[in-house]
Amino acid sequence: MHLLSFHTGGSDTPRLGARSGERVADLAALAAAAGAELPGDLAALIRAGEPALSTARALLAGAPADAWLPISRVTLRAPLRPGKIVGVGLNYVEHVEESHRSLDTERELPDRPVLFGKPATAVTGPGGPILHNADLTKQLDWECELAVVIGQAARRVTEAEALRHVFGYSIVNDISARDQRRSGQWFFSKGQDSYCPFGPVVVTADEIPDPQNLDLSLKVNGVTKQDSNTRHMLFGIARLIADISSGMTLEPGDVIATGSPSGVGAGLVPPQFLQPGDVVEATVERIGTLANPVVDARGHEARDHGELAGA
Amino acid sequence: MHLLSFHTGGSDTPRLGARSGERVADLAALAAAAGAELPGDLAALIRAGEPALSTARALLAGAPADAWLPISRVTLRAPLRPGKIVGVGLNYVEHVEESHRSLDTERELPDRPVLFGKPATAVTGPGGPILHNADLTKQLDWECELAVVIGQAARRVTEAEALRHVFGYSIVNDISARDQRRSGQWFFSKGQDSYCPFGPVVVTADEIPDPQNLDLSLKVNGVTKQDSNTRHMLFGIARLIADISSGMTLEPGDVIATGSPSGVGAGLVPPQFLQPGDVVEATVERIGTLANPVVDARGHEARDHGELAGA
Repeated sequence: MHLLSFHTGGSDTPRLGARSGERVADLAALAAAAGAELPGDLAALIRAGEPALSTARALLAGAPADAWLPISRVTLRAPLRPGKIVGVGLNYVEHVEESHRSLDTERELPDRPVLFGKPATAVTGPGGPILHNADLTKQLDWECELAVVIGQAARRVTEAEALRHVFGYSIVNDISARDQRRSGQWFFSKGQDSYCPFGPVVVTADEIPDPQNLDLSLKVNGVTKQDSNTRHMLFGIARLIADISSGMTLEPGDVIATGSPSGVGAGLVPPQFLQPGDVVEATVERIGTLANPVVDARGHEARDHGELAGA
Repeated sequence: MHLLSFHTGGSDTPRLGARSGERVADLAALAAAAGAELPGDLAALIRAGEPALSTARALLAGAPADAWLPISRVTLRAPLRPGKIVGVGLNYVEHVEESHRSLDTERELPDRPVLFGKPATAVTGPGGPILHNADLTKQLDWECELAVVIGQAARRVTEAEALRHVFGYSIVNDISARDQRRSGQWFFSKGQDSYCPFGPVVVTADEIPDPQNLDLSLKVNGVTKQDSNTRHMLFGIARLIADISSGMTLEPGDVIATGSPSGVGAGLVPPQFLQPGDVVEATVERIGTLANPVVDARGHEARDHGELAGA
């Protein structure tokens, strides 16, 4: 299933849905029509586990044709609000090289995953604005990443059992204000509001048998900047889950942003950064494309957080 | 008010309470007895704002003597599970110096707050074990910090208005596995399960008119290791809130750990780190003492997260 969160014109309340091609079905409406019990949002569906997933599958299989809305008639939101987002830095060999050249990180390949955090307040949904605040940054950059959404809680799991804790896969654009690192720490440079575009869907793990063989790419204004494959990760998904969970419990709905391939703006010659008016499209094979416009934060009205977080 | 979360022998469900001296009152029970509406936990109380706080104050003022239990008869939990925890590094001058000497951070005072994240899964309550995993670290260290608990959401607030967004103050012991920094990033070294002891109470802001003049100290096994005052912060609380909220929305219940004074284990000559069997007590004037034992993680049974998080 390609699960998502959406709202329609009439309401701002996010609803749990599923995508099939260019159509979206409202899972809560299907459950109500069938008299079935189903959690009302994706985070709760994940916590409810396999029985709830089976119910969702059955509802979609039996959905009448008129239950499917054209996707153009709905507004997608971030699939869920993660409890935590664990970012992985320097996880593609060529990106380690470009980062050393342009961002004063070490030249040597890391011998352990380089982990950092992004807060849930950084999440924005498909189509949501990436806020460009020229008072804070002149170096707003992109990073297309495969996102892993945790299903069952993982605490000290081995690599062999790690993938059983994956609910599904999605896309994160790990936006950074390169000039807002603080004594080298990335939390503020990567954790500001809207710096975590997430979506458009979470594809359940059964539909992605080999997550280490997915093309991923990113375009700015239609021009390809990143183009790689998840097989080039330095630390694969199973290793990341085992490593993180050795000390840090991964909970249902937590997200791991598995790192960016080369081709970030800071690494280009000359460097190139995002500006208001740009559109960034991050694509991962079998998942889809996550597109976000860059807007001037200074003209952007204060928004309630629910909207920013898509939650 | 000194607000807290607790449970009693009969139940594992945390309840909202208040402390007065060595006694604790059950606010939910007082509300039920009075027929008053009151949120059932501290996070919800904070979101409910001033009317709910006034209700709580009135309930406590009118509480009969037998509503107050001896604190020894209850188990305290972490006051709440924060949406995010923003840590501040290198925020006391003498700690910048010792950190440069022992932890290869820069010698110069930072010109902007050094921010990092700790996930909510790191939270443990008063008396909760600090997990020492000798397979992962030989350098488990302490840091006594004043914690700021956000009341009203803060987004791009000025220093002048910043303190109006504070709900209250508490204590965080910012535990670090110094040898688990990853290419310099602190998220894994400071973000593991149990690395954020938090509590014992949240003191509402009205009871701490000057948060920049509080003694804070820390003892290991009864021996004083840290002893300073919050007036020595490099960036005060108002500046921290203004700086963080310039890019990152602070939500009700979010916590800022405002940084550690000198006297951490890594800075001692010779260095000294926590071992199973140690007891760490972090004290902040007007708030209390947060005491936690260090236990061997390898013999520590897997616990459900709710217990670890005290939530």
